[in-house]
Amino acid sequence: MSAPPFGDRLVAAVEARGSSVVVGLDPHLTLLPPPFADGAASLQRDVVAAAVERFCDEIVETVADLVPAIKPQIAFFERLGPPGWTALERVVQRAKRRGLLVVADAKRGDIGATATAYADYLLGGPDGLGGLDADAVTVNPYLGTDSLLPFAAYLDRGKGLFVLAKTSNPSSAELQDRLIETAAGERPLYTAVAELARQIGADSRGERGFSSVGIVVGATHPSQLRELRGSFSELPFLVPGFGAQGADAGDVTGAFDERGLGALVNASRSLLFAYRGEEYSGLAPKQWSEATRRECKKMSTAINEALAGVRKNEASDRTC
Amino acid sequence: MSAPPFGDRLVAAVEARGSSVVVGLDPHLTLLPPPFADGAASLQRDVVAAAVERFCDEIVETVADLVPAIKPQIAFFERLGPPGWTALERVVQRAKRRGLLVVADAKRGDIGATATAYADYLLGGPDGLGGLDADAVTVNPYLGTDSLLPFAAYLDRGKGLFVLAKTSNPSSAELQDRLIETAAGERPLYTAVAELARQIGADSRGERGFSSVGIVVGATHPSQLRELRGSFSELPFLVPGFGAQGADAGDVTGAFDERGLGALVNASRSLLFAYRGEEYSGLAPKQWSEATRRECKKMSTAINEALAGVRKNEASDRTC
Repeated sequence: MSAPPFGDRLVAAVEARGSSVVVGLDPHLTLLPPPFADGAASLQRDVVAAAVERFCDEIVETVADLVPAIKPQIAFFERLGPPGWTALERVVQRAKRRGLLVVADAKRGDIGATATAYADYLLGGPDGLGGLDADAVTVNPYLGTDSLLPFAAYLDRGKGLFVLAKTSNPSSAELQDRLIETAAGERPLYTAVAELARQIGADSRGERGFSSVGIVVGATHPSQLRELRGSFSELPFLVPGFGAQGADAGDVTGAFDERGLGALVNASRSLLFAYRGEEYSGLAPKQWSEATRRECKKMSTAINEALAGVRKNEASDRTC
Repeated sequence: MSAPPFGDRLVAAVEARGSSVVVGLDPHLTLLPPPFADGAASLQRDVVAAAVERFCDEIVETVADLVPAIKPQIAFFERLGPPGWTALERVVQRAKRRGLLVVADAKRGDIGATATAYADYLLGGPDGLGGLDADAVTVNPYLGTDSLLPFAAYLDRGKGLFVLAKTSNPSSAELQDRLIETAAGERPLYTAVAELARQIGADSRGERGFSSVGIVVGATHPSQLRELRGSFSELPFLVPGFGAQGADAGDVTGAFDERGLGALVNASRSLLFAYRGEEYSGLAPKQWSEATRRECKKMSTAINEALAGVRKNEASDRTC
């Protein structure tokens, strides 16, 4: 009995919630809301990890009916040593029980038995030694196919990968935009990565048309989103950079196909720490999560309306 | 009071031991020697982690007077969840107390606050929340300068970086060898990475001439080792792929400068699990580490002799 492919699971989750938003769990210690601030300011790792865990749990409860997925940023948990990993494992289990897909943002990239160890921990479990049992994981392609195949071994268990292609940060251009020769002429390096993702996921396409291997493309690059969606229609996109990094709903429409499917748009700080915004200054400290809830809904609506606008324009173009 | 730069610390450690070998701590569970095999076969993570820790401790004791550094492969510890991280932290502390440099082979690559969290954990400590306090860390350059600077913030505390440039695995060619336009004409992508490493480490050169930011270049690529050493004389090289991956002492001489300095050559399986070799079948199970000790010495000697041979040939070329 094999699990439904990740591409189908992703589309089902997006349709069930009517949202393409993924909430990034980036628990910046200095930004945690008042109920957790004292714990986060401790110098004892187990105290800090406990505060982070309770904060993340409340985020999970707050967004579970609104969005299809969460994306824990592994670095923030790794920072806290063993208690951080314990907190992460519990948060992931709780999110899964609440019906959220979990994308482990680990950006791992290694080879052979090492890559297998990373894949077994991040995607594996509960058999054998157990593992985080995330639904998908981000991976770094710099080492090539060797570094992706151990993760791809999990595709037939319903797991997914997102390969870093064109990241949202300013210096992403330094290597990712370098022009290389391809069969189709000169192309940026990130298109070679998208080709790798296509090959690795070729046999994993689900009934809804998407591969279980997608790519990461920053919301800060609207034209590249459009260009890559045009060439790689079957790849799901994970799109970071919305909100705090400056991109808005209009910037991400190119990541979606004509059905309005195919992308998960991530925001972290602008959702987790929405309580800090001026418009929420009237909320009592204990109600901080209400700000997250409202911003989550706003973001989903803004993306859905931008997509509806695109479809309307395309329809009227056809009429003319 | 700032610490001596990593480049100087590295040269001092190599000269003190008369060896350029770094022992890779890759505790493959199915290969652990008899005293630890039962623990490693458990399905309880804390039992497995305890066996891994005791094995690594014995490796540290076995090689501490023979080599300048160890390189724990983070994936094998991450695989075991929180108890794996506890084991890793203890092994690193013990190795440092025994005078070994510790290169955390983490291959992390992320941006902004996330990269800072990785750097603070891997290189930071014992202040504040503490950390692994490794002497150096491997990093992945695919995200560009943004992803390297948070690690480089530790250079003035005597810490070092090794940026993945040309890795030892077969599919390293897929992205790393792609030709790109540079000021000096068409060059493989990995030379752009070496340039990045040069820029990031430009202000960190020590009295012995080496930067605190080096690159990873596989022993399986002797001609690229030579080419990169020719162009990047100040970068320390971390050279994996010796032994089990097929490279030998003759393959790595190009990584060194005319003084016989500038490279750490890593071997993992061929040293850790040397006891499995036919020539050691006469050792009692408790004496497994004697095989590691002998293979360590052999590897150091083979590299030193190959380097002496190169210098002798160069001298006789000059005489002719």
